[in-house]
Amino acid sequence: MVEYADASPEVREIYDDIRATRKTDFINNFWKALGHHPATLRRTWESVKEIMAPGALDAVTKEMIYLAVSATNQCGYCMASHSASARKKGMTEEMFGELMAVVGLANHTNALAMGHRVEIDAEFKAAEFKTA
Amino acid sequence: MVEYADASPEVREIYDDIRATRKTDFINNFWKALGHHPATLRRTWESVKEIMAPGALDAVTKEMIYLAVSATNQCGYCMASHSASARKKGMTEEMFGELMAVVGLANHTNALAMGHRVEIDAEFKAAEFKTA
Amino acid sequence: MVEYADASPEVREIYDDIRATRKTDFINNFWKALGHHPATLRRTWESVKEIMAPGALDAVTKEMIYLAVSATNQCGYCMASHSASARKKGMTEEMFGELMAVVGLANHTNALAMGHRVEIDAEFKAAEFKTA
Amino acid sequence: MVEYADASPEVREIYDDIRATRKTDFINNFWKALGHHPATLRRTWESVKEIMAPGALDAVTKEMIYLAVSATNQCGYCMASHSASARKKGMTEEMFGELMAVVGLANHTNALAMGHRVEIDAEFKAAEFKTA
Amino acid sequence: MVEYADASPEVREIYDDIRATRKTDFINNFWKALGHHPATLRRTWESVKEIMAPGALDAVTKEMIYLAVSATNQCGYCMASHSASARKKGMTEEMFGELMAVVGLANHTNALAMGHRVEIDAEFKAAEFKTA
Amino acid sequence: MVEYADASPEVREIYDDIRATRKTDFINNFWKALGHHPATLRRTWESVKEIMAPGALDAVTKEMIYLAVSATNQCGYCMASHSASARKKGMTEEMFGELMAVVGLANHTNALAMGHRVEIDAEFKAAEFKTA
Repeated sequence: MVEYADASPEVREIYDDIRATRKTDFINNFWKALGHHPATLRRTWESVKEIMAPGALDAVTKEMIYLAVSATNQCGYCMASHSASARKKGMTEEMFGELMAVVGLANHTNALAMGHRVEIDAEFKAAEFKTA
Repeated sequence: MVEYADASPEVREIYDDIRATRKTDFINNFWKALGHHPATLRRTWESVKEIMAPGALDAVTKEMIYLAVSATNQCGYCMASHSASARKKGMTEEMFGELMAVVGLANHTNALAMGHRVEIDAEFKAAEFKTA
Repeated sequence: MVEYADASPEVREIYDDIRATRKTDFINNFWKALGHHPATLRRTWESVKEIMAPGALDAVTKEMIYLAVSATNQCGYCMASHSASARKKGMTEEMFGELMAVVGLANHTNALAMGHRVEIDAEFKAAEFKTA
Repeated sequence: MVEYADASPEVREIYDDIRATRKTDFINNFWKALGHHPATLRRTWESVKEIMAPGALDAVTKEMIYLAVSATNQCGYCMASHSASARKKGMTEEMFGELMAVVGLANHTNALAMGHRVEIDAEFKAAEFKTA
Repeated sequence: MVEYADASPEVREIYDDIRATRKTDFINNFWKALGHHPATLRRTWESVKEIMAPGALDAVTKEMIYLAVSATNQCGYCMASHSASARKKGMTEEMFGELMAVVGLANHTNALAMGHRVEIDAEFKAAEFKTA
Repeated sequence: MVEYADASPEVREIYDDIRATRKTDFINNFWKALGHHPATLRRTWESVKEIMAPGALDAVTKEMIYLAVSATNQCGYCMASHSASARKKGMTEEMFGELMAVVGLANHTNALAMGHRVEIDAEFKAAEFKTA
């Protein structure tokens, strides 16, 4: 991990932007691990900053979507870091409980749909063509 | 697949509840495939009805979380059926675009976090203990 | 895909063993696709023949375990080919229904356990040490 | 985690049913983590009790199917808790060894089938129509 | 899908860059699907252009790594599009055969390592500290 | 885990071959865990020895492909053991950085391709028929 004190000017500039954007001095280990690969650090941080900012979806909804993927992929680090962010951005315990219920259900029915090899309904294909 | 006309009274009762709850005569293939296993049909439908109903999270947010899991798991049927539901419940093209951007990003950083074997920050563990 | 008529002697020998072991002339596409890479064809067939043979677990149980993995991984080909084998070896519609119920449940609770970041109980660790 | 002593009457009732059904005072962490979301706790426990009970498949086969999914999904908690249950219900070391061999093989050939983009044989589709 | 003729100037500019970079008029469906979400189209294309360019790893090695992930995730589209790119950049049938053998093996042993809940050797942790 | 000193002659013979092939006395925990199931130990070791040996792909490329799968599957043990092997066989920090960038990107675009339900281009299908 590359600590702030040991960072090159290029890496330090990104760390500074993380701190400024998040209004905190704390830089979590994920970014310090990417500190060894400045191109990945920069590209990943730019993507996170752009994608996770509120837009048509608000910030807490985005964090919950992030958690849904991370629980499905069994990523322990991502659950730990983004459940902290989600809570900071307003996710209550009740919202988290419902989030996890949907995530569990979707993983459940995804397996059932494949297991039973369900064919896509003509109705859904038609809907697709209208919107996309 | 078990069509309505061929369904046992037990299965038909569940099909009727699906129709009544969703205010449509259409029963999609997923349920017809489960029609061969009435216990699974009933249990799955009860869970879907209970979990996907609006609560601390609204219905469209729940559908988007469902889509996040289904894209991650590469479940084609689930993407087809639930992007139809999500659109019906109010997901716009712009919301869908942002949803998929977050889903792509989370799958990306989940792999980076494991690949770099990032250790969970003490700060996140502490946060955990306060809230949970 | 390498058809039997076009196969090299090395590949044909393996095709012959597949036919003899399975008591059928039918060679499914999976093996024909591996026909381009004789080393993979041979190694994979030897593993399948050895691992799927009845032992401490009977043949139909092994096929059901195979299906559990394939539904979880969303592998359409593997579901199609191995649900045929499982049925041939004695899996009834009722057994398939219960299999899929367990597979759905396990995918559900796997996500819940990670989502809630449940710590392994000391009791389970102790049990581990005694048996392993 | 919600300990028995701190549980609401609603949660305690479910804990009591877990204890009675499993004939043990021990409640593992998974349930205590769900204790914060009584609706999820109740629904998940009802599903586990119903699905994992012996039926067309016996209890130890169900536990092994559960383990097959959990190893595939890389769920450490689930492997720990359910290998304990599986052993308690009669899974021997030899059965576990064969189970894991099939799980490894299925993950292997699932990747090969997708990697080589194998098309589903007409023969398997036909078989499907007869049985389903 | 957004065809070139129907694209906004912003989208058309990215399509032009895809064509120029790849020295072909052909724009594959993936990009046309992202055409509805210009921000995602731009970000994704910039990442692909930057990451897939030869560096410490040559272009064909990068394509093979891409295929390894796509086969593991069961992404049919990605296997189709990137096995075309990999072949164009020099992947032979023999290289593809060995690639898939490693991918199959890794999925196999990943499941075994989790299934047997193997603990990380102190020797590997030490190696980590030296290099990272 | 089965230590060398406690191993049966059959298991010891495989441990000896691991040591001889790798030119080191060190046997990592993965093999010791398989020591309880000699058939799996032998089969897995034979596959690893055969598949990971240099061929049309060199040894370090094979290790990197292995890491790509392991990061995607979130297998902590496999990342730890095979990043050690990859480094020993010549993977530099810069190569590892680029490897992980491709792995992240592929997981990202795999999800986007499924999420947007992109259809395979006719051009890719045609290419397939020519080469395979």
